[in-house]
This record gives sequence, C-alpha cells and structure tokens, in this order.
Amino acid sequence: MTSYKLTYFNLTARAEQIRFLLSYLNIDFEEVRIGFEQWPTIKSTMPFGQVPVLEIDGKVVNQSVAICRYLAKKAGLAGGDDWESLLIDIAVDNIYEIRQEIMKYYHERNEEIKSKLRDTIVNDSIPFYFDRFEKIVSENGGYFVNGKLSWPDLYFVSILDHIKAVINVDLVDGRPHLTALKHKVLDIPQIKSWIAKRPKSLL
Amino acid sequence: MTSYKLTYFNLTARAEQIRFLLSYLNIDFEEVRIGFEQWPTIKSTMPFGQVPVLEIDGKVVNQSVAICRYLAKKAGLAGGDDWESLLIDIAVDNIYEIRQEIMKYYHERNEEIKSKLRDTIVNDSIPFYFDRFEKIVSENGGYFVNGKLSWPDLYFVSILDHIKAVINVDLVDGRPHLTALKHKVLDIPQIKSWIAKRPKSLL
Repeated sequence: MTSYKLTYFNLTARAEQIRFLLSYLNIDFEEVRIGFEQWPTIKSTMPFGQVPVLEIDGKVVNQSVAICRYLAKKAGLAGGDDWESLLIDIAVDNIYEIRQEIMKYYHERNEEIKSKLRDTIVNDSIPFYFDRFEKIVSENGGYFVNGKLSWPDLYFVSILDHIKAVINVDLVDGRPHLTALKHKVLDIPQIKSWIAKRPKSLL
Repeated sequence: MTSYKLTYFNLTARAEQIRFLLSYLNIDFEEVRIGFEQWPTIKSTMPFGQVPVLEIDGKVVNQSVAICRYLAKKAGLAGGDDWESLLIDIAVDNIYEIRQEIMKYYHERNEEIKSKLRDTIVNDSIPFYFDRFEKIVSENGGYFVNGKLSWPDLYFVSILDHIKAVINVDLVDGRPHLTALKHKVLDIPQIKSWIAKRPKSLL
C-alpha cells in the first residue's frame, strides 16, 4: 500500500486542498504539523525551501497544485478527456490567482499599503472573481465544470475558511450557487468526516 | 481542422510558451497582437479581464499554464504516466513561481521598494531557484524530467529573453546544464523557425 506523509504548518492555507483530496480518496495519511519555531531548521531540508510537501512512498514532492492534480486523477476528479481537464485546470488557476492576490494583503507589512490593498481586494478583486465564479457555477449545473464534481469544487471549498480568517470576507455570501456548492462539498461523507476530526487551527 | 487564435500584446511574456508549443505542434495559428491603447476596450471582453487567451475552434480559454498543459498533451510532452506528469507539473510550477517573483519587481512602481526587491531577487531568489534547476537538469540527463524533452523545457527557454529584458540577468550564465538545455530547445527545427519569423518585441 502506498504511504503518504504530508508536511506543513498547523494551518489549512496551502495544504487543506491536499488533505481534502487525500480524505476524498479514503487514504489514511500521516501528517507532520511543524511549529513555526522549527521552521528555520526544516526549511533548508525542503526541495524548494517550502511546504507543503507530500512524501509518497518516501519520494518528497512540492507544489500543492501539482500534487492536487495528481491526487485528483486517482480520484477520477481530473476530467474525462483533455478538453474537460483543460476546463478544470483553468478553474483551479482562476481560483488560485485570486487566492494569491488575497495572500499579498496577508503578507504585506506596511500598514498604509496593506490598507489600500484591502480596499482594492474587497471592493474590486473579490467581486470581480467571485461574481464570475458564481456565474460559471450557475451555468454548469452547480459545479465549476460540466455539471459534475471535479477537483476545483474541492479546491474552492477548501480555501473558504482560510480566506475568511485572513481578510474577513465570506466569499459565498450573497452568491447562492457558490453557497450551494459549498454545502454539497461539505456534505461529501469523507470531507465531513475529515472536517470533524481535523486539528483546530487559526488560519 | 481545428483553428487556433491567440490574443495577447506584442510581447513574449505570458504568451511565448503557448507560441512555442503551437509551433512545436506545427499548428498554423492566427495571432492578434493588441496595442496597449486598445487594451482598456478589449479588457472587459476577456473571460477574467486578462490576456493571453486562446480561441480553439471559437471557444475562448484563459490561463496560460493550463493552455500549455493542454497543448503539451497533444504534443506528447506532458508525461507518459501520472507520476511523470506530476514531476512535469512540479517543474513548471517551480519555474512559474520564480517568474512571478521577478515580475513583482517589474510591476513595482515605488522606486525604493523596487530597488530592494531587485537586490533580493538577484542575490537570493534567482540563485536559489536556478541553482536548483541546474542541479535537477544535471541529474536528469539534460532535461527537467526523466532524461527526455517535456514541456517544462520549452516553458523554461521561452521565458529567458523576457526575464533578461526585465531584470537584466542571464539566467543560464554560469550554469552549463541549463545553457545546454537552452541550445537544445532553440535547435528544435520548429522552435528555430518560429524564432526566426516571430514579430520583434521589446519584452
């Protein structure tokens, strides 16, 4: 049996998508949740100085989106043909892009720039992206792609709590199709059971 | 026959990877190179307000990396099994990540922040990433993954001139395996012929 060990901080952030997919696959994975005080020592041992990394039968791989795609293929959530896989990859990259923009706000240390960044993100970028996501999901039978569950749906729901904690915006509020999608994903038995048992974390 | 129309600025930047792959596939694609003065009008007609977009038989898709993966599959450059595809996706995302960091410098308008950013990128980030790329290519028979050509190799070479123009660093200088890879890719007949005929651009 293949062994999976996930190394990250005690955060959802960039690892929760991987945990959602491993859970969806009913894989009993090992987790190492490193403390921030351990990070400087561990950083230099990581392939590109970053976490999360997933160890698959002892082979360590980085890049969370690539890891998710690999797991999504195993789960049958990565598309039935090349065109569907393209639409799925686009959906994920669109979600990833706005997540990255929101994280710029989180990492900004200059209070003046941070405050301006928040205004732009909350008033412009979030409506721009999430209104489009709402439209896409409404036109695709309640999912991101082709009226059926695929990994962008899991990816999307996995970041909602994290983004709420970072910038205090509920991304599905006032968007009924995204709200329905959120509940559909959270009602998947393996996801429900993962969320019930996962360690508590601030972000 | 499938028709392909690529819309972008008269820049290499985020579209040259797509042009490399279309050329590699011997696809006779149409190009629309929009002027910066046209951009405000065109922006609102784009799926997520961005270019490049590729129109495939009239269907418009965004997200350059997703588009490249789709084309790479057609070209047989996206991996022979799920594990190889994972290694390929990781390589691309690692390259994309440092490219994004360099582009932060390009987009920064505050001269003081810009200058500090340049120091960090040139002295820390570029050596960090590109020394690792050099090691990966040296350990993988002269390519990014498994000793044979795959789309990270094309992706990598497609950004070199652009990065040179942006931050004035030759990313393969002093890195013999990356230099050899650059020449191997530029010697592919379809790439060589594309570069000979492509429109001149500053970046």
